[in-house]
Amino acid sequence: MSESSRYDPPTLTSVRDWWTTSVTRIAPGEVEYRGIPVQELIGTTDLITGMWLLVRGDRPTPGQAALLEAAMLAAFDHGPQAPSIAVARMAVTCGIGINNAVASAVNTLGDSHGGAGQQCVEMLNDVVRVGDARAVVTAWREKSRYLPGFGHRFHPRDPRRDPLLRLVEQAVEAGEVAGQHLRAALEVEELLSEGRARPVPMNIDGATAVIYAELGFPPELARGFFVLSRSVGILAHAWEERQSGRRNKGPIPPSLLPTFVPPAVAPR
Amino acid sequence: MSESSRYDPPTLTSVRDWWTTSVTRIAPGEVEYRGIPVQELIGTTDLITGMWLLVRGDRPTPGQAALLEAAMLAAFDHGPQAPSIAVARMAVTCGIGINNAVASAVNTLGDSHGGAGQQCVEMLNDVVRVGDARAVVTAWREKSRYLPGFGHRFHPRDPRRDPLLRLVEQAVEAGEVAGQHLRAALEVEELLSEGRARPVPMNIDGATAVIYAELGFPPELARGFFVLSRSVGILAHAWEERQSGRRNKGPIPPSLLPTFVPPAVAPR
Amino acid sequence: MSESSRYDPPTLTSVRDWWTTSVTRIAPGEVEYRGIPVQELIGTTDLITGMWLLVRGDRPTPGQAALLEAAMLAAFDHGPQAPSIAVARMAVTCGIGINNAVASAVNTLGDSHGGAGQQCVEMLNDVVRVGDARAVVTAWREKSRYLPGFGHRFHPRDPRRDPLLRLVEQAVEAGEVAGQHLRAALEVEELLSEGRARPVPMNIDGATAVIYAELGFPPELARGFFVLSRSVGILAHAWEERQSGRRNKGPIPPSLLPTFVPPAVAPR
Amino acid sequence: MSESSRYDPPTLTSVRDWWTTSVTRIAPGEVEYRGIPVQELIGTTDLITGMWLLVRGDRPTPGQAALLEAAMLAAFDHGPQAPSIAVARMAVTCGIGINNAVASAVNTLGDSHGGAGQQCVEMLNDVVRVGDARAVVTAWREKSRYLPGFGHRFHPRDPRRDPLLRLVEQAVEAGEVAGQHLRAALEVEELLSEGRARPVPMNIDGATAVIYAELGFPPELARGFFVLSRSVGILAHAWEERQSGRRNKGPIPPSLLPTFVPPAVAPR
Repeated sequence: MSESSRYDPPTLTSVRDWWTTSVTRIAPGEVEYRGIPVQELIGTTDLITGMWLLVRGDRPTPGQAALLEAAMLAAFDHGPQAPSIAVARMAVTCGIGINNAVASAVNTLGDSHGGAGQQCVEMLNDVVRVGDARAVVTAWREKSRYLPGFGHRFHPRDPRRDPLLRLVEQAVEAGEVAGQHLRAALEVEELLSEGRARPVPMNIDGATAVIYAELGFPPELARGFFVLSRSVGILAHAWEERQSGRRNKGPIPPSLLPTFVPPAVAPR
Repeated sequence: MSESSRYDPPTLTSVRDWWTTSVTRIAPGEVEYRGIPVQELIGTTDLITGMWLLVRGDRPTPGQAALLEAAMLAAFDHGPQAPSIAVARMAVTCGIGINNAVASAVNTLGDSHGGAGQQCVEMLNDVVRVGDARAVVTAWREKSRYLPGFGHRFHPRDPRRDPLLRLVEQAVEAGEVAGQHLRAALEVEELLSEGRARPVPMNIDGATAVIYAELGFPPELARGFFVLSRSVGILAHAWEERQSGRRNKGPIPPSLLPTFVPPAVAPR
Repeated sequence: MSESSRYDPPTLTSVRDWWTTSVTRIAPGEVEYRGIPVQELIGTTDLITGMWLLVRGDRPTPGQAALLEAAMLAAFDHGPQAPSIAVARMAVTCGIGINNAVASAVNTLGDSHGGAGQQCVEMLNDVVRVGDARAVVTAWREKSRYLPGFGHRFHPRDPRRDPLLRLVEQAVEAGEVAGQHLRAALEVEELLSEGRARPVPMNIDGATAVIYAELGFPPELARGFFVLSRSVGILAHAWEERQSGRRNKGPIPPSLLPTFVPPAVAPR
Repeated sequence: MSESSRYDPPTLTSVRDWWTTSVTRIAPGEVEYRGIPVQELIGTTDLITGMWLLVRGDRPTPGQAALLEAAMLAAFDHGPQAPSIAVARMAVTCGIGINNAVASAVNTLGDSHGGAGQQCVEMLNDVVRVGDARAVVTAWREKSRYLPGFGHRFHPRDPRRDPLLRLVEQAVEAGEVAGQHLRAALEVEELLSEGRARPVPMNIDGATAVIYAELGFPPELARGFFVLSRSVGILAHAWEERQSGRRNKGPIPPSLLPTFVPPAVAPR
């Protein structure tokens, strides 16, 4: 008896079902997002609401949409010292499409470059669930020396923290979000500053994680929306570099050669 | 005399200048997009305006922003039969991050999958400049059997055409855009239907190209914004597939084996 | 005092050092791999030895090179039902370069599609270090329901297992490798079959993991060399599909529409 | 009548045929490359012959395999100033898999970074077909200011040229290859140096293009094999950088900020 016999015999229905989706329905002359004809949405639905609708399958209130909008705008870009941006600029000079340059760059938004927001949502969820910020922080510290969403290697105080948290506070007052994750994050922030001359304020990942968590996004979608957000900066830089006309841009001016450290004995 | 001597001697300034940008300025405690502190933009600037600002460096009117918004929403998704979407869904089951799945998919938005809008902007620009749609279409037809932006292998009439063009017409009436590229596209559409039982209407790429062209986007940025737009559908499908928990999804159910065509003589 | 002051003041040397490498030295008219002029290597060094040299920095014996060669060849391809291969074939029809198609595909060689070999090397190292296969398997089973390198959803007995293990046995007899990891793997295989009607033999990932482990490769390089290996199959399929001339290939014939599951209530 | 009616009604056979391949056959317990059981190839076939067999479907003579081997080894790496290498090193610090880092890098091997070999094969084919090197060079110069495969921005004389061409000469003498493309390339090289103080010798792309062309590779496969070759250098650098433990490596030391050129008037 062959191994493949554990599969049901295939039918055309099983082929169609293999690609089952609830996102979009296509038929000749018809396109529906989440069951809504696209022509009903075009011209009536703003971009942020459309994104939320397509990815999550439900609709935000205007206040919730505004929070997501702020989180996305705040994370658009952090300049060419961010690996994603440098990669985009170098890639676009190599004779590839702008889509390819964006892809090489988006690909770098991994656990340490784009994942802090996702991890911070998880941590804030933990704090809300467990109800003991100190215990949660201690547990996270055991897993990693980086506490996601707090402190910044470059900004003493991240300029995006205050305006983002202010919007969350307003949304709490307006009853748009519950405020639990905001309180959790502020508690963590306070904990981290205990006994330190310099505080360890929330950074962009922490402040946007508060928003994603308050809006009920699963942690991985926090990374997903960060990808959509940073794609804007990636495109902006790829396009700027494209216009320069440069070919095969390396990381430093071509007159500078990387330091070579030879082996003690060449492996001849 | 070495080849490298044709470069000026490097300095720290030349290293900093190698990464010159006008997109974003970063300093400790400061982030500016296009010269504007990010805290001025957070909470005051909607997503579409922010995207336009960061990528182009200028600001749209509300009417222009609304056109771009409609073009982006209309192109979010076309279901799993689009290679980009299928790639995203398969990739995310392979034990990689959601950013990596998005990247593999965005990477496929090439000349034939994501490039028709860009090409159509070029063609419409040609028609407006040359003033002779028939001549331009003839010239394009000599380069390729596919006229970018017209006809659809699946939709007899693309359901996204009419609502998009209606918005452009309204924007022309409101003085938001000039209407030249809209007229050029309608002229091409009419030409293509001459003597045919079935018309060859504009498709999504054509209708959005009208918008990008009317808004003065360079052709390659039409592809760039399509990338941002389709990334939303890519994320929606990657996320839906992620939730299924499937591992290493192939293109067809595993009980079906691809047809193998052996060589006449095995190359032993 | 600004945050950036914790960095030493930069110099041109620090810029060059930022890109320090021991892999390759470049100077005008000179290219050295691991300290050896490339002209000494061209025509004298076979591909597998060159790969080993460049990536690891040392040289294999001919017997070790032969083992690595067998592991790489055995993993070249597993047909279009492998997500990496399907992605390559779809991607290349989208109007992108063959390098881009390869990249979209290589990108999918993640923890569940390309990572089993790496994980199996780790597990075999554990068995050798701990000396108790049963304890190690139990510990791995607690982390994951998939034991990396054993069993196959498709092959009752993977046809690549026996010839690969036979080569390892011969290398052990010849004194080329020590044989500890081979014994560990056979012990695990026996354990897994206890009390089962059908054995759970090593698969391609397990058999190649034995080779990588015997050769002293760090686990992550097992994935690295698998990437190089599978890139060959990816290229072969991308090229075959390219020659078909198809455009925008979806996962199933275009006459088949994916099943759409609508929401109970459309989120209007 | 719906548009989709122009497709034949689908069957399970049409689904299987959609993924037709001549590369690899898979059945339970069986894997065949180009019709040859993989167990016949493991341990008997060297890596370069296996690559040629899988991708092209035929077998090289040992002399032909040796030429391909030399071309591949010579192009492994050119250090971190090559965008592909820098991208690999930056990407791997971002918390992504080594396969993802390789993918971001391979993706950059586009028309100007990895395409010169492919273009040079086309040009040499033109010279052989047309029989007039001067006319062909003139025609290429009209299309592009870069003549693919000749001259180097860094090496006055590429150190890989001579050993590669010497191997081709030996293969011509041994009757392994015909020598037409070698003569074409030498003729072009001579032409380019007419009336110049400094010659414009073949570079790595030119010398390897001679090999690919002599071996009868279609031009796009020259890029394909370059991708396989450069993947080795990409992996070597990604791995070296991984071992450094650095996180989120930017292109220049973090104490150096990119130059920002503000707009004349901020687009507030």
